[in-house]
Amino acid sequence: MPELRKDPIIGRWVIISTERGKRPHDFVVEPEVSKGGFCPFDPGNEHTTPPEIMAYREPGTAPNSPGWRLRVVGNKFPALVMAGQLDRQGDGMFDKMNGIGAHEVIIESPDHQLTLSTIPLEGFVDVLSAYRDRIVALSQDPRFKYVVVFKNSGRAAGASLEHSHSQLIGLPIVPELVMEELAGSKFYFNYKERCVFCDMIRQELQGRVRVLLENEEFLAICPFAPRSPFEVWILPKNHYSSYADLTQDSCRLLAQVFSETLKRLEKVIGQAPYNFILHTAPFREPELNYYHWHFEIMPKLTLMAGFEWGSGFFINPTPPEDAAQYLRDAQL
Amino acid sequence: MPELRKDPIIGRWVIISTERGKRPHDFVVEPEVSKGGFCPFDPGNEHTTPPEIMAYREPGTAPNSPGWRLRVVGNKFPALVMAGQLDRQGDGMFDKMNGIGAHEVIIESPDHQLTLSTIPLEGFVDVLSAYRDRIVALSQDPRFKYVVVFKNSGRAAGASLEHSHSQLIGLPIVPELVMEELAGSKFYFNYKERCVFCDMIRQELQGRVRVLLENEEFLAICPFAPRSPFEVWILPKNHYSSYADLTQDSCRLLAQVFSETLKRLEKVIGQAPYNFILHTAPFREPELNYYHWHFEIMPKLTLMAGFEWGSGFFINPTPPEDAAQYLRDAQL
Repeated sequence: MPELRKDPIIGRWVIISTERGKRPHDFVVEPEVSKGGFCPFDPGNEHTTPPEIMAYREPGTAPNSPGWRLRVVGNKFPALVMAGQLDRQGDGMFDKMNGIGAHEVIIESPDHQLTLSTIPLEGFVDVLSAYRDRIVALSQDPRFKYVVVFKNSGRAAGASLEHSHSQLIGLPIVPELVMEELAGSKFYFNYKERCVFCDMIRQELQGRVRVLLENEEFLAICPFAPRSPFEVWILPKNHYSSYADLTQDSCRLLAQVFSETLKRLEKVIGQAPYNFILHTAPFREPELNYYHWHFEIMPKLTLMAGFEWGSGFFINPTPPEDAAQYLRDAQL
Repeated sequence: MPELRKDPIIGRWVIISTERGKRPHDFVVEPEVSKGGFCPFDPGNEHTTPPEIMAYREPGTAPNSPGWRLRVVGNKFPALVMAGQLDRQGDGMFDKMNGIGAHEVIIESPDHQLTLSTIPLEGFVDVLSAYRDRIVALSQDPRFKYVVVFKNSGRAAGASLEHSHSQLIGLPIVPELVMEELAGSKFYFNYKERCVFCDMIRQELQGRVRVLLENEEFLAICPFAPRSPFEVWILPKNHYSSYADLTQDSCRLLAQVFSETLKRLEKVIGQAPYNFILHTAPFREPELNYYHWHFEIMPKLTLMAGFEWGSGFFINPTPPEDAAQYLRDAQL
């Protein structure tokens, strides 16, 4: 049984996973992303993954068989386990609880060759809808407080399988970075009585130097103080704190902006590894007037070294104004 | 002129460095650690580095010539620049200031073959003394508030030269992670009227399951909630908030514990890349009753992927109790 543990100094929680590669020699070999060969995510191989949790599929086709457009399954090597109670307790001055949580894989398309920058728009809409549907479903579990939805693309970004997929981790705590965002945006709201993200969107749309693209409802920008080169954020222009409330019409508009952003990134920095992460309000909060959901896309172009680790202070060699210019100028 | 910029949401500062590889194609090639060939840190090549800021050298030898045991020089590709004023200002809702700061390289030994796990004890004492001496010197500059002292060992940890060296970055702000530690340990102190680090040391010395080694003054432990496998912290057993106050006698005792820790790590996980970082109180603070300086050593055995980036929530596959056992059992 893995454990969740809280650092007593800054309140940072970590998962101590006792099941996964805990011996020193387990770290020696870096697995390469498998090219060709057997793929557990290809249609026909459904029996080689953990059972389907949800799928978008053709009417009349059975779960765990072909006929799906998108499929959500448990992670074969989960960082957290679903069964059990949290059992929060102290160990002297330390705090811990059981590592209860959901760890799911979203297989984005049956087509092994597609990526999120080449998938048809309908497929991208499916992916964004699936994120929402799983967040809504997991929010019904009273043990959970948050779902982190993320994608690792490329080995250096943490992907171990080539077939395009995202992941989600449902957690019994709100992760540190989200807590910091919530605290920071609430502090701003208390002072200004305005959402800091809405203010940022307003200023970016006036200046436009960091704006990458937009449509009626969504905006892609290079943020003012990015941690990584070519970091891009995608936000709803109107104020919404929870991704769970996204309508199907908005999903389509989001897919347009998201898809074009990834195409432009690929044009400019090639098939560089990247991560993206959805930041949304914790479960069971009413609509928050101070928080604003958004995606953060972080290409892996620089190395996270001692300085960043040790300080939480990032060195970024590319001004976001330059990055936005490159991305706007890319010929698709 | 690089810029420091503050993220308006969580208050995280970043350096926007306009001088360093800002075009997309600059990122394509990952430089390998140079093996053999010309080394700018070897004795006789002193003229190929920026001028010496400080050195420990044989009496009668001239700066920027051979005869040194340890040498501190400016970083040839600094992330921040020394000359100028901070010029803090707003840009609408955003805050920024000039990227003023020190970026120095500590060349730990003239011997190209040595590493911190093979350097003689006297050499290790020099390295730890140099950290202190540079912190004391930089704290005289009223523009600066903090120095981050760190080491990148191995290419995956961010090193680009083989010859053993550490770095320091003097900053006009206190980095986010240190701010969080200060806030968290102050919160604990306000409640308990005790230092959280002192409490942790007391509990670890009672249980001993996460203790790696100790001497009269210093302790090496695997922390309760580590972010990375085989993470080790080294702390003074008595309460000190600032590394700047370290005496030469204590330096020697610290070198003993630090040196043996690195030897044990190398025995267990081989020459894995690692980072270490000194966490100490900001400049011009009196002795703080709630903060406690320490080194954090973080081997690079796992990949920082989307989940960690997006959540500040780390997945660590090795319980620290197991790590401490492996490290204690290593035959040196």
